[in-house]
Amino acid sequence: MKSTAAADSYRRVRTQSLALAAPLSAEDCCVQSMADSSPVKWHLGHTTWFFETFVLEQQEPGFRPFNPAFRVLFNSYYNAVGDKHPRPQRGLLTRPGLDEVIAYRADVDRRMLALLAGDAAEVVELLELGLHHEQQHQELLLTDIKHLFSCNPLLPSYINAGAGAINTPAAPPLEWRQFAAGLTEIGHAGGSFHYDNEAPRHTVYLPAYELASRLVSNGEYLAFIAAAGYADPAFWLAEGWDWRIALERRHPLYWHQGASGWQEFTLSGMRPLDSGRPLVHVSYYEADAYARWAGARLPTEAEWEHAAAGIVPQGHFADSAEYQPRPASGGTGLEQLFGDAWEWTSSSYAPYPGFRAGAGAVGEYNGKFMVKQYVLRGGSCATAAGHLRASYRNFFPAPACWQFSGIRLARDA
Amino acid sequence: MKSTAAADSYRRVRTQSLALAAPLSAEDCCVQSMADSSPVKWHLGHTTWFFETFVLEQQEPGFRPFNPAFRVLFNSYYNAVGDKHPRPQRGLLTRPGLDEVIAYRADVDRRMLALLAGDAAEVVELLELGLHHEQQHQELLLTDIKHLFSCNPLLPSYINAGAGAINTPAAPPLEWRQFAAGLTEIGHAGGSFHYDNEAPRHTVYLPAYELASRLVSNGEYLAFIAAAGYADPAFWLAEGWDWRIALERRHPLYWHQGASGWQEFTLSGMRPLDSGRPLVHVSYYEADAYARWAGARLPTEAEWEHAAAGIVPQGHFADSAEYQPRPASGGTGLEQLFGDAWEWTSSSYAPYPGFRAGAGAVGEYNGKFMVKQYVLRGGSCATAAGHLRASYRNFFPAPACWQFSGIRLARDA
Amino acid sequence: MKSTAAADSYRRVRTQSLALAAPLSAEDCCVQSMADSSPVKWHLGHTTWFFETFVLEQQEPGFRPFNPAFRVLFNSYYNAVGDKHPRPQRGLLTRPGLDEVIAYRADVDRRMLALLAGDAAEVVELLELGLHHEQQHQELLLTDIKHLFSCNPLLPSYINAGAGAINTPAAPPLEWRQFAAGLTEIGHAGGSFHYDNEAPRHTVYLPAYELASRLVSNGEYLAFIAAAGYADPAFWLAEGWDWRIALERRHPLYWHQGASGWQEFTLSGMRPLDSGRPLVHVSYYEADAYARWAGARLPTEAEWEHAAAGIVPQGHFADSAEYQPRPASGGTGLEQLFGDAWEWTSSSYAPYPGFRAGAGAVGEYNGKFMVKQYVLRGGSCATAAGHLRASYRNFFPAPACWQFSGIRLARDA
Amino acid sequence: MKSTAAADSYRRVRTQSLALAAPLSAEDCCVQSMADSSPVKWHLGHTTWFFETFVLEQQEPGFRPFNPAFRVLFNSYYNAVGDKHPRPQRGLLTRPGLDEVIAYRADVDRRMLALLAGDAAEVVELLELGLHHEQQHQELLLTDIKHLFSCNPLLPSYINAGAGAINTPAAPPLEWRQFAAGLTEIGHAGGSFHYDNEAPRHTVYLPAYELASRLVSNGEYLAFIAAAGYADPAFWLAEGWDWRIALERRHPLYWHQGASGWQEFTLSGMRPLDSGRPLVHVSYYEADAYARWAGARLPTEAEWEHAAAGIVPQGHFADSAEYQPRPASGGTGLEQLFGDAWEWTSSSYAPYPGFRAGAGAVGEYNGKFMVKQYVLRGGSCATAAGHLRASYRNFFPAPACWQFSGIRLARDA
Repeated sequence: MKSTAAADSYRRVRTQSLALAAPLSAEDCCVQSMADSSPVKWHLGHTTWFFETFVLEQQEPGFRPFNPAFRVLFNSYYNAVGDKHPRPQRGLLTRPGLDEVIAYRADVDRRMLALLAGDAAEVVELLELGLHHEQQHQELLLTDIKHLFSCNPLLPSYINAGAGAINTPAAPPLEWRQFAAGLTEIGHAGGSFHYDNEAPRHTVYLPAYELASRLVSNGEYLAFIAAAGYADPAFWLAEGWDWRIALERRHPLYWHQGASGWQEFTLSGMRPLDSGRPLVHVSYYEADAYARWAGARLPTEAEWEHAAAGIVPQGHFADSAEYQPRPASGGTGLEQLFGDAWEWTSSSYAPYPGFRAGAGAVGEYNGKFMVKQYVLRGGSCATAAGHLRASYRNFFPAPACWQFSGIRLARDA
Repeated sequence: MKSTAAADSYRRVRTQSLALAAPLSAEDCCVQSMADSSPVKWHLGHTTWFFETFVLEQQEPGFRPFNPAFRVLFNSYYNAVGDKHPRPQRGLLTRPGLDEVIAYRADVDRRMLALLAGDAAEVVELLELGLHHEQQHQELLLTDIKHLFSCNPLLPSYINAGAGAINTPAAPPLEWRQFAAGLTEIGHAGGSFHYDNEAPRHTVYLPAYELASRLVSNGEYLAFIAAAGYADPAFWLAEGWDWRIALERRHPLYWHQGASGWQEFTLSGMRPLDSGRPLVHVSYYEADAYARWAGARLPTEAEWEHAAAGIVPQGHFADSAEYQPRPASGGTGLEQLFGDAWEWTSSSYAPYPGFRAGAGAVGEYNGKFMVKQYVLRGGSCATAAGHLRASYRNFFPAPACWQFSGIRLARDA
Repeated sequence: MKSTAAADSYRRVRTQSLALAAPLSAEDCCVQSMADSSPVKWHLGHTTWFFETFVLEQQEPGFRPFNPAFRVLFNSYYNAVGDKHPRPQRGLLTRPGLDEVIAYRADVDRRMLALLAGDAAEVVELLELGLHHEQQHQELLLTDIKHLFSCNPLLPSYINAGAGAINTPAAPPLEWRQFAAGLTEIGHAGGSFHYDNEAPRHTVYLPAYELASRLVSNGEYLAFIAAAGYADPAFWLAEGWDWRIALERRHPLYWHQGASGWQEFTLSGMRPLDSGRPLVHVSYYEADAYARWAGARLPTEAEWEHAAAGIVPQGHFADSAEYQPRPASGGTGLEQLFGDAWEWTSSSYAPYPGFRAGAGAVGEYNGKFMVKQYVLRGGSCATAAGHLRASYRNFFPAPACWQFSGIRLARDA
Repeated sequence: MKSTAAADSYRRVRTQSLALAAPLSAEDCCVQSMADSSPVKWHLGHTTWFFETFVLEQQEPGFRPFNPAFRVLFNSYYNAVGDKHPRPQRGLLTRPGLDEVIAYRADVDRRMLALLAGDAAEVVELLELGLHHEQQHQELLLTDIKHLFSCNPLLPSYINAGAGAINTPAAPPLEWRQFAAGLTEIGHAGGSFHYDNEAPRHTVYLPAYELASRLVSNGEYLAFIAAAGYADPAFWLAEGWDWRIALERRHPLYWHQGASGWQEFTLSGMRPLDSGRPLVHVSYYEADAYARWAGARLPTEAEWEHAAAGIVPQGHFADSAEYQPRPASGGTGLEQLFGDAWEWTSSSYAPYPGFRAGAGAVGEYNGKFMVKQYVLRGGSCATAAGHLRASYRNFFPAPACWQFSGIRLARDA
């Protein structure tokens, strides 16, 4: 990446974060609705901290921090950097105010662009990492504000999207695409940006398998509910059943069953549930139970990546500012592979053979989370366009459902 | 109370709430730092809801609520009014914004003053209750924001008080005032405003007793700490000791022991601990343990009230905008009886003989909390001037220490 | 107490503990069903430890402990004695086995009786304390085994009592007994055994009041349930309501509503609920709610003791081996004042004016628990006969309901 | 399996369970020391329930249950069978007593042997499953009683093993065995007994890798501790570090550091830690941290199984009645692959490609636990001899350390 291109990218991604926060009040940006989420303001500060700590502090002559206290306040989990403000208390930080965090962003941006105006070769790698990191937080910003708003009885709208027809036609028939058994390679081959967890590229053997042509739709999931899917433990992993009982779950996170039928809370407020659109906001447990009920299973991440090889990672991403998945159109091939909804795989998040964490503090980015989480693939309608790759590995614990997580079925051939 | 006087009182108290919120940002006003506290914005809304629900809704011709959703959002605990937003989730209400809550206040104020401009006889009693209610929330607003700021590593100041000399002279010698045994009466005699829990006035028999001439000072409490007061269970109630161990308490809530000695977090930020000033922010457990160590005990509420009879309830209240207790000056009689620090009594909060809760929903104001709490007397430096009486009964659970709660010793004669 | 009488008392009380354990297997005696209860074996060991530690260790020439480890294992809460095995882990002590604990009892008994054969003047006071202590644990042994058995789906019987008619006649009409206002004295006057918490005797002033002639019956409590007593928060203390919701309580602890009507788990297994018998196993919250619903209130402990003065403490105690309260017979005066069911008072457990804890380690017996508990009076059908006095103060936290706790109503005159 | 052989196997395995319980008192057999473990008596009952429910109830003419209540009491997790006694309350079952459970065993054994005396062809498959099931519970019986005894300050011995030299020589040098990359097959090929989770046999591709010649020794793990292994988060998975902090772990579960050096609690009581013996009782987190510190990693289950192919599953199993792993002797090849200690693999417990759960209720045996657990291989010194196979998959959650779980290192070639 040349310096000019680098500066352009930097400006574009950084501006987008502020654009995402624009519809929100300072109050909206301050509050944390659960320990797994973070305040929007914290996302804005932390992504800035990333550049200040990993780029400026290393490269800027005469570096002085914008505010020394921010080194701790906005450190997420980098032990190598030092102390961290406790995660569940991020929402208590009414100070610094949103204005001050925006000033922090402006200051770091000014200095970063100054640095990029020189010979930026040294920083390009960390710059790219920082921008992809910021795009990840842009998605979290959206899912976290959605969760916060869902806790408010006023059910606020983040954005008044003209969300198109309220009831799209039923989803096109689900078809199965075949893949033959054999050796294949997965993982990033190098030569362009990727996270350390996508490498090294390596050989795997895949038995013959089939993938569904599209995502599971709301209508199909309603059939699972109607068939007592939430009432029969035979469909569920034992731990999933315990989770369901403990949380009294009878439907996906943001669904509500009211007098006038099913509704779904969206970033544009409460809407009638659209049965033709893809299902989102299910946990791994629900995805697995649905698949078992449907006589299928979840794909492994290797199956998914093998199928995705050679497909251009385009689709319905966050640049549409729509923030709900779109109905499938019923083409040939694999639809909705990129965008719309993250697809749970049955693969536990683990290091690839030969995996080496990045050097230095950024080595804590991915590797240390490789336990008890499951890999999701493909990105969602809240993911930044251009952020995804076939080798991209997202990961969340099995109970997580505040992400735009959905289901693509697989089965043995 | 005449209508004009009523309107004046109304304006004065209501304005004071906004004045207390003035140094705070919308973010500061939104967040809740623990389940026991509430956001400032919620205090501003709830006190307004009180007038809207208990006065306007009953008396205003053609009453229409400012926002029907507020009936639930700002209901604290009145089951007779209906549903309530869950207390621990008050801090998730980023909407309505502070601006909207201030508009809510303005609207209700306009309508209340219109009502008071007419024949206000019907509403005077509830008006007075509402204003005293609001003064209670003004104190909670201060203690809740103090707690929130204490959780922020930046240790913000609420107000930059010129807090006078940092190290006042040592407290004057503690002397004992004697009270003879005999029958006496406590409780409010009627004829002016009081809460239902202060009535009826009734006879009690008191053995001879002595009260300390002033509050326990920080310096005296430091001696307790130095004498291993937090290390020896012999001084503590069994439950207090368990509390101490579980929370790893080794000093009062807002004290810090740093390289340069003891410091105390105040509404003006972190300050060197002033040994001459009264101790505040101790739990009932700590108050009781200190008293036992000092060879004394806490007073009963009847002893306290008997001693306070005939003393004008003046002292260092919130109108000073100082928000730290002031050193005793060493006069005769009982110093610091009103203001400075709430004084824990050994009396469990219970109904007086013949107690009847107020009629209607406001009957839930006090009576239903008469279990497992202890009575505090005398008001603090955060209590509104004019709010206190000798018969005034405040109450908190034994572990509470985020109020300005201190210690006056008593002993048997 | 003379030595011979002392030895006789000792033998009688100690034998009774073993008699109570006789119907139980070693397994029954080992398990702890909740943190508030203790295994029977632990009761047998701890009461023995009391004599070994507080009498033999002080008085026996050449004292050597039966097993040095028992000093920790069987210490309940005496910090002055040293370390304590954690209370919630008492049920993990499969070793020492029941046989060894019985051998421990025999050894300590032999040595105690040898000591008493000499000049026992020195030990008489502690001996009496130890025997009353053991009687308290005899009652706990019964209530703890009742709780344990209630957790077993087989619903075992402790004893097959010929429990008389299954449906006694309805309770006789509840009448009110009047007591005039005035000064009175409560507390133990000295001169015979009493716990430190019963002293000193002191003057109190009582307004005129009335007490119910008998305990509240199961039938009366059924009427409270039928009147939606568990569904309307207006009857409940706020904390009681939260307790009810959290535990999903809809009836007293050991009641079950089955196809064939209400049943009650007893120490003789599950029995049809007998509407004429006194209610037992209610919490303070339930007792208070019932009283409010019934237009009455709970008595204070001073009212209770004043009414009990001069009444011989006889009644239906544990010597009947029946372990269920008996129906009232409808006499004049106050029936069921002693025995049948502990009577919740509205009095928080607090020190009497001038209270001094006993000297030495036994000073931890009572005083350190004087917070957040409520006083119960009168003893129950599980209390050892001869154990009670008018001045006797039992105490439990408001949520406790595994004791034989019932309700006597009071009201203002 | 012929009927005679089947009956012999049945007798041998069933007798062994009672032999394992023989050193224990009824009290020892009754108590449950944590939710993850079960009382010995429950193991004895549940394994019997397995035969009664899955064999007799299906095959015995005129079947009548020994006790209908046992169907619920001793059901572990089979939803298809019906209700289950809650797992954390298994320790409250003082009834049925141990004697009655032994009578239950005798009755079921008599009827099973009568059944096997006839044409047993129908039941052979379930019989074998039941016997392997019982062997699994025999190991759990040992690990559960070890945990219970470790909670007892008396530190009882289960068995006084002549445990050989207290300090064996240091472990022989750790060497690396090489395995070439390529396609291989893992999983059970059928034709003899195996659990459903071992099938189907399937192709995997393995990169070149190396396995350590023996298990990690106590001495090597002491070096990790000495090198501040428990103090530096850089070695730990993020979740493992949180686990370590929350539980304040500074060494393996049963280690103690006393005045006279390191000791280890064993089934023969507390013993000096033997540095030459294999490490046991570490969690997945500790195993992973140690491996990272040692510059290695844990093997995958495919690597392990590929290496184990063709090796006779012999080693130090429970038939030695020693219950501590034995030192390595330093041979060529892979030592201690079977027996001594279960070996944590980095493989999440997941279905093999084409996995089908067994039909009927026994289909709940394995499949529904395939989430958030890790596979362990090779068996331990507490595993029944003859129970293991190269394809055998044991599984536990990452925090589990009360099993005899140890570490074999792996690394990329």
